[in-house]
Amino acid sequence: MIELAENRYGKSRVRLMKVTRHAHGQTHSHDLREWTVQVLLKGDFATAHLDGDNSKILPTDTMKNTVYSLARASKATAMEDYAKELVDFLLTRNPQVSSAAVRIESIMWKRLTIDDEPHPSAFMRGSNELQTTNIERAQGGSFHVLSGLDNLVMLKTANSGFEGYIKDSLTTLPETKDRLFGTAVRAEWRYTSPNLEFDALRTKLREAMLCTFANHDSKSVQQTLYAMAESALEAVPAIDEIEITMPNKHCLLVDLSRFHQDNPNEIFVPTDEPHGYIEARVRRKS
Amino acid sequence: MIELAENRYGKSRVRLMKVTRHAHGQTHSHDLREWTVQVLLKGDFATAHLDGDNSKILPTDTMKNTVYSLARASKATAMEDYAKELVDFLLTRNPQVSSAAVRIESIMWKRLTIDDEPHPSAFMRGSNELQTTNIERAQGGSFHVLSGLDNLVMLKTANSGFEGYIKDSLTTLPETKDRLFGTAVRAEWRYTSPNLEFDALRTKLREAMLCTFANHDSKSVQQTLYAMAESALEAVPAIDEIEITMPNKHCLLVDLSRFHQDNPNEIFVPTDEPHGYIEARVRRKS
Amino acid sequence: MIELAENRYGKSRVRLMKVTRHAHGQTHSHDLREWTVQVLLKGDFATAHLDGDNSKILPTDTMKNTVYSLARASKATAMEDYAKELVDFLLTRNPQVSSAAVRIESIMWKRLTIDDEPHPSAFMRGSNELQTTNIERAQGGSFHVLSGLDNLVMLKTANSGFEGYIKDSLTTLPETKDRLFGTAVRAEWRYTSPNLEFDALRTKLREAMLCTFANHDSKSVQQTLYAMAESALEAVPAIDEIEITMPNKHCLLVDLSRFHQDNPNEIFVPTDEPHGYIEARVRRKS
Amino acid sequence: MIELAENRYGKSRVRLMKVTRHAHGQTHSHDLREWTVQVLLKGDFATAHLDGDNSKILPTDTMKNTVYSLARASKATAMEDYAKELVDFLLTRNPQVSSAAVRIESIMWKRLTIDDEPHPSAFMRGSNELQTTNIERAQGGSFHVLSGLDNLVMLKTANSGFEGYIKDSLTTLPETKDRLFGTAVRAEWRYTSPNLEFDALRTKLREAMLCTFANHDSKSVQQTLYAMAESALEAVPAIDEIEITMPNKHCLLVDLSRFHQDNPNEIFVPTDEPHGYIEARVRRKS
Repeated sequence: MIELAENRYGKSRVRLMKVTRHAHGQTHSHDLREWTVQVLLKGDFATAHLDGDNSKILPTDTMKNTVYSLARASKATAMEDYAKELVDFLLTRNPQVSSAAVRIESIMWKRLTIDDEPHPSAFMRGSNELQTTNIERAQGGSFHVLSGLDNLVMLKTANSGFEGYIKDSLTTLPETKDRLFGTAVRAEWRYTSPNLEFDALRTKLREAMLCTFANHDSKSVQQTLYAMAESALEAVPAIDEIEITMPNKHCLLVDLSRFHQDNPNEIFVPTDEPHGYIEARVRRKS
Repeated sequence: MIELAENRYGKSRVRLMKVTRHAHGQTHSHDLREWTVQVLLKGDFATAHLDGDNSKILPTDTMKNTVYSLARASKATAMEDYAKELVDFLLTRNPQVSSAAVRIESIMWKRLTIDDEPHPSAFMRGSNELQTTNIERAQGGSFHVLSGLDNLVMLKTANSGFEGYIKDSLTTLPETKDRLFGTAVRAEWRYTSPNLEFDALRTKLREAMLCTFANHDSKSVQQTLYAMAESALEAVPAIDEIEITMPNKHCLLVDLSRFHQDNPNEIFVPTDEPHGYIEARVRRKS
Repeated sequence: MIELAENRYGKSRVRLMKVTRHAHGQTHSHDLREWTVQVLLKGDFATAHLDGDNSKILPTDTMKNTVYSLARASKATAMEDYAKELVDFLLTRNPQVSSAAVRIESIMWKRLTIDDEPHPSAFMRGSNELQTTNIERAQGGSFHVLSGLDNLVMLKTANSGFEGYIKDSLTTLPETKDRLFGTAVRAEWRYTSPNLEFDALRTKLREAMLCTFANHDSKSVQQTLYAMAESALEAVPAIDEIEITMPNKHCLLVDLSRFHQDNPNEIFVPTDEPHGYIEARVRRKS
Repeated sequence: MIELAENRYGKSRVRLMKVTRHAHGQTHSHDLREWTVQVLLKGDFATAHLDGDNSKILPTDTMKNTVYSLARASKATAMEDYAKELVDFLLTRNPQVSSAAVRIESIMWKRLTIDDEPHPSAFMRGSNELQTTNIERAQGGSFHVLSGLDNLVMLKTANSGFEGYIKDSLTTLPETKDRLFGTAVRAEWRYTSPNLEFDALRTKLREAMLCTFANHDSKSVQQTLYAMAESALEAVPAIDEIEITMPNKHCLLVDLSRFHQDNPNEIFVPTDEPHGYIEARVRRKS
């Protein structure tokens, strides 16, 4: 005999662009947001799986419509607040749903500067860094708010070494006091309340991590990752935990001695694979 | 005060191609395997994070070397068996490691058929489907073997409908008795023993899922997913649980009535986003 | 003073899936085609560029609609024939257009085999190889038909060496009589007539190239590329020219001597970058 | 009889990262460049293709080594100047080569700003915009210098309409005075001399195009593209021609009337496919 265990379903990659048009006297200035939304529901869906009975199934197409309809109705500016509205809307209208989760990835658009002035209505795509949030709530429960960022690609050309590690018969890596340290940070932190100034806190937390990455005297990716987590927790008391993943995207020093040239840490081959993978969760002691 | 919680590290995207050269009388026939390997370690790494002390850190570069060295030494033909050797090698040589995990993704290469004969040494890339395995073991513990597949893209043009779902003020989807059903299956199943004929079991399980997908009279993705899981559990008694994710990659019927043409389920727009997301875990009842 | 030189415009990535439903007695068998279409027009569009006058502009949205409408009306089974219809439809209705070009990329879908029988309505995605065509015609002119394929990824594990090349002060590559030879073929050939059995010719040409790749005793990518072009021209008299691009996707032999192991051409690292790039056009002598 | 027509070969995707370390009194400030280099040679390579004779073949592996060796030796800061050195080095050492071409794509890295100060050694990846150059020279000939940019993704939320176009039986697009205009600019311009301040000219030309995109009152993509080309030619007298490709990446207004909501150009679905494709070359009149 077999049985259905955990299951969930929903809609992924619902792309939403929202233009907010402010009127200031004569001139009009626009804001631009691009969000990719995922909605996932858990609940009493056994009859759909076992009997092909769809009477408890809210179509994923309807979830997509809900994303757009609520985006129009919502006054929220932070994606966390919009996601909360979306979760509650779905829970209220669907008693068969036991919990709803919304994940949003926000794409970076930067206002163009033309003749040293911010332009009211022209934008340029920023980097591939994503700002993220995951909001989940069970029927009758409280919000769980995890926000984060992904693909924050950084590189430092000083203050990074790697020495004193285990050597064995398969070791070929030389120790170094001075290497390039390139990474693509993914981070996710947990807020202790669902009612916060999310955009301001995000800015503060991200800047703390950037500052630590730039200034840390790194003995290893692990040590820098931990220092960045520590600075995030110090900068924002409203989070109690942060998980950070930092691949080590290796830049290999080219051996130019074969051509009778030196290479004083100047010429490197950046590589995508293989790469180191370092991950840790850091939290306040309870 | 803050503290380090879970953490792990390792090497990702170690690419390995292994050519096995068989000698059969006069002719030589080659086998080709391409695996992408990830190694992850958990253990006593707090001093690296907190103090920059790397004396317990096995460099990820050494893990990469280990992948290649063991691939040469190994007699294993199934990737599950090679992954087990890799896990045990790392655990034995690194007492500071509490558990080791190896994930392998196998890329599809197909032998070329030339003049109706299998060619001994020429191959063509198959589809983007991946065969996967995850092997994990703690020091002194037993193996956990999860194998799977990913990105198995299939489409059926008959025997799929979607009706009887919830209608509300945000519903725009019409009911249909006859739609295209396209998906990209990801599955992962758990073996009850680490000593099995993994390649043969994988073939059997995969064929059971393909057969069910093709023949199932589908009332929903959920129902077909469950039927596929059921057939996998029936085909292979050596697994006790399977998790399947099946996005619904929509093919939209084009409205040609605007041009005074009919469209009897013939002309569609395939789309990548948004897409439905359906996921369930199915297990033997204990 | 400045002036407008060449210009063209159109619609890219119009995705079309066409299901053809055959009725054979009791059973129904379906065919599946997935094509990505691009339409490009040249003509008298100077006033649009200079004056913002759109009166000669056929919207690219209308081109998209035309792709779907004609796909329904068309009886063509080969994409070359459908593309010819599309080109002529656009030329006839738009006298301001001086020439129209249609490019189609066909995606590989394979019918599933279930219980050793071809299934009437279930399909699996094949490899990422694309079949392509480019049809162009000027008002009052004749068709130019270029067909091809792209991303045909192959690898041979025998009968490939590279020796006797130039050595200089920057040479580090060792000569080898036995290497892996991996590539991703792109080819485009020119038909001498627009009225041909395109699907049958394509099959014949492609098989000739596969056979030559598999059996050729390769001294270089250049030599194998030329031999493949030669076999294509021999197999299909209806083409007079073929251009082939064959990157050399290197598989690097791992140096295991550092670990006191041999490596008799068995363990390799497949790489994506950097890669060799080899391209040539081969034609019948006039 | 068949013959070899045009052919060329070389190395693609040679990735180079160069760190320049300046010493200013006590502090050290670093510059970071990441270039992806392609080298392509034409020449007397018929014997390689026809006879498998490699005696005139410079291995592509040696080209890769040349890229790194010359990068160390070079004092050039602009990629155009480095590419010129690479072309001449290859032509001088290889008389069998009739012409050499080098293409470089430069990846955007931005210096981190920490505590309102530019950091000496920490960088963040910018957008996916690439700066490009193509330098080609025949033996005894002069340099051809084409520089450009690619994937400059921009969007304007005002001053863009599309009206007055052709309507026919396949038209469904409504006219609009106010739409979003999103694109990903690719441009390539031709310098009239090989000895110029390339970095300064590039900055000037790019800013002229950004300014025109932002401020142009657009009646069509064609008209804005032409205006951008015109402003580039006006800003930089040292170019005589520019080719620009500007896909129209559609943002579709969501129909919320089905849900009894208005949508005053606020809620859009950004799409990747299909997209408009607009391309033109604009030059000085001779």
